[in-house]
Amino acid sequence: MPFSQHDHRHMARALQLAERGAWTTRPNPMVGCVLARDDHAVGEGFHVRKGGPHAEVVALEAAGTAARGATAYVTLEPCAHTGSTGPCADALIAAGVSRVVAAMRDPFPQVDGAGFERLRAAGVEVASGLMEAQARMLNRGFLSRVERGRPWVRLKLACSLDGRTALANGESKWISGPASRADVMRWRARAGALLTGSGTVLADDPHLTVRLGTDAPFATPLRVVLDAGLATIARGNIRDAAAPTVYVHAHDTKVPKGFDAPRTSVARDAAGQLDLAAVLARLGDAGINEVQVEAGATLAGAFLRAGLVDELLLYIAPVLLGEGGRPLFDGLGIETMAQRLKLQTIETVRVGDDLRLLLRPSSS
Amino acid sequence: MPFSQHDHRHMARALQLAERGAWTTRPNPMVGCVLARDDHAVGEGFHVRKGGPHAEVVALEAAGTAARGATAYVTLEPCAHTGSTGPCADALIAAGVSRVVAAMRDPFPQVDGAGFERLRAAGVEVASGLMEAQARMLNRGFLSRVERGRPWVRLKLACSLDGRTALANGESKWISGPASRADVMRWRARAGALLTGSGTVLADDPHLTVRLGTDAPFATPLRVVLDAGLATIARGNIRDAAAPTVYVHAHDTKVPKGFDAPRTSVARDAAGQLDLAAVLARLGDAGINEVQVEAGATLAGAFLRAGLVDELLLYIAPVLLGEGGRPLFDGLGIETMAQRLKLQTIETVRVGDDLRLLLRPSSS
Repeated sequence: MPFSQHDHRHMARALQLAERGAWTTRPNPMVGCVLARDDHAVGEGFHVRKGGPHAEVVALEAAGTAARGATAYVTLEPCAHTGSTGPCADALIAAGVSRVVAAMRDPFPQVDGAGFERLRAAGVEVASGLMEAQARMLNRGFLSRVERGRPWVRLKLACSLDGRTALANGESKWISGPASRADVMRWRARAGALLTGSGTVLADDPHLTVRLGTDAPFATPLRVVLDAGLATIARGNIRDAAAPTVYVHAHDTKVPKGFDAPRTSVARDAAGQLDLAAVLARLGDAGINEVQVEAGATLAGAFLRAGLVDELLLYIAPVLLGEGGRPLFDGLGIETMAQRLKLQTIETVRVGDDLRLLLRPSSS
Repeated sequence: MPFSQHDHRHMARALQLAERGAWTTRPNPMVGCVLARDDHAVGEGFHVRKGGPHAEVVALEAAGTAARGATAYVTLEPCAHTGSTGPCADALIAAGVSRVVAAMRDPFPQVDGAGFERLRAAGVEVASGLMEAQARMLNRGFLSRVERGRPWVRLKLACSLDGRTALANGESKWISGPASRADVMRWRARAGALLTGSGTVLADDPHLTVRLGTDAPFATPLRVVLDAGLATIARGNIRDAAAPTVYVHAHDTKVPKGFDAPRTSVARDAAGQLDLAAVLARLGDAGINEVQVEAGATLAGAFLRAGLVDELLLYIAPVLLGEGGRPLFDGLGIETMAQRLKLQTIETVRVGDDLRLLLRPSSS
C-alpha cells in the first residue's frame, strides 16, 4: 500500500518532533506523534522522558475530540503493555483514531508487533514502514541495545589535515576550534555514556561532562573509565560530582582497600586487554543506548580493530602538525591494501573553521 | 562610484566566459568581455589562446553596430600595446563604446594603467575594481608570474582520513576514487607545468599527462622533474612523447654524455637540496603561470617548509590506512603548537566518495 504525500509530510514532522527528545528520553526511544486529518494536523507530541507521557498521549490530549476519525503518525509502533504509563494502543483506540501509520515496528520484546495487533483487533487500520530508514537512524542507539544487546558506539576524534591528534610531546590543545568543541557537547548530550581509557585520564585529565552553555535539559551521561588495573582511580576531574562515573577493570585486578566508586569487571581478551565486547554488553545491560568513545589512539584503535565502532565522528581542523604528530589510531595493523578500512561518509558539515565528518565502517 | 546590479550581473557573466579559457589561454591571462546596454547584452567573448583575438575583439565582432554607446565589461584592463593583436583599447574606442568597466588593472608592464589612460583620453568613461577579488582568483597564476616573478604553486595530494598517502610498503593505488582521479586531470589541464621529484619518478613512474576523457582542447602542460643528480633520466613514462619534459638538476651535477633532453640547473640550498625558489623563478621566466606539484612527502614537505605553496588541493578518501602508513609530509619539523601550519579552507566539495579541499596557508 503506497503512502500519500500527506502521509510523508506528517511522518517527517513526527520524526522532527521525536528528535526533540534526543537529550532526555533515554533509555527510552525517541518517539514523535502527529494526529491529522488529510493535510491538517490536529495534535502533536513527543516523548520527553522516561516516566512521562508517551508521544501518542501528548498528541491525543492536544487533539481532544478532533482525534476521532483522525490518522495517527508515530515514529515507532505504539506500545501494548503497561509500563510507567498505560498502553498507547488502548489510548488511540479509546480516542477513536481510525488509522495508525508507524515508521517501524518496535523490536522491544514487550511490544514487537503486539501494539499493531491490538489496534487491528479493535478495527483500526494499521500501516508500518513509512520513512523507516530515518526512524532507524534516529533511534540507532535504542535499536542497537534492543536488537544487539549493546549500545551504538560512536567514536569521536579530532585531528589535523594530516591525521594527527597531537604533537609528538602530546600537546593537543587548539587543534579543533571553539565551534567544534561546542558541537561535541551536543553529541555528548545525546549519549547515555561517555567512555574513555586510563591513558587519556592520565594524560588529559578530562571532565567528560556536558557543558552546553544553555539551560536546555539533558539526562547526564554516565562516565565510563576503562582501567584494567585500576591505576587511575585517584585522578581528578573524572571523579568530580558533576556526573556519575563507573570504572571497568579486569576480573583479576585486586581492588584497592577503601575504593568505593562504582565499578564492574570484565575478562581480559587474548591480548590481555579488557574484552571490549564484554564492556559493551555490560553497558547494554545497564540501559545505555549510545556510548561516545573519547579516547586516545590505542583504545580508539582497539575498538576499531575489534569491529565495535558503529560510527566515527571526526573533526578535521585546517592545520598541519607534521609527521612527528600522534596518529589517530594505534595498532590497526594494516599491511596490505585489502586490509584498509573503508568507511561510508554519512554527513559532511563545516563547523566553524573545521570540517565534521560522520562516517560508518563499511561492512564489505 | 557604486556599481549597479546590471554591472554586477554582466561582470559575473564576463568572469564565467573568461574561465572557459582556463585550459588554453596560457601564458596569457583568462579574459572575458560582455558588451551591454542596461540589462541587455549585445555581444560577448573570451580569449581562447595566445595569438588569437582578445575577448574585447570577439565581443565587438558579435555586437557589430550595437556596440556604439554600449558599456564593455572586461575582467582585466584592456591592452594598450600591439602584441599578437592590435590594442583592445583602440578597438573599443573605434566601435564607439561609451563606458568600460574592468574588474581589475592589468599589472603586466606593457599595460599597467595605459589601457585605462588611452580610453579616458578618448572620452570613454572608465571604472575599475568591480568583482576584483573574483578576477584575481581567476587569474591567480598569471598575476603570480607578473607580480611575483614566479608561478602560483598548487600542491596536489591525496590521502586517507588518517592522513596517509600510502601503506608502509609504498603501495598507494586505490586510495582516492575514480571521480577524484578524473578531477585531478581537470586541474592538471589548467596548469602550465606539472612538477614532480626524482623519488616519485622512481617509485611510481607517473605519466604526468592530461587525460580528460573528452576532446576538450587544452595546452599541454610542461612536465618538470626535480632531479638534482640526474639519477632518473633513463626512466620511463615521464620521457614519453605525450608532453615535453624538462629536468632540473644542480649546477654541480655532471651531465651524462649523450643526455639530450631539455634541462636546466639551479643552485643547491643550505641543506644541499635544489633551491626551490630558484626553480620557481626559472619556471616564471619560462612563462609558466601555475605549477601543480605532484610529489611525495619529502618534496611536498620541502615546498611547504619553504613557504612556497600557494594552495593545497587535498583529496581525502574515506579509508583508514593506520599508523604505519606514509605521512602527507616529511620534514615539517613542527615541535610546538606555535609552529603548526594553519590553513584557510577556500572550498570543500564532495568528489565521488572522496572529499576535495582547496586550502591556502594562512599568512599569520
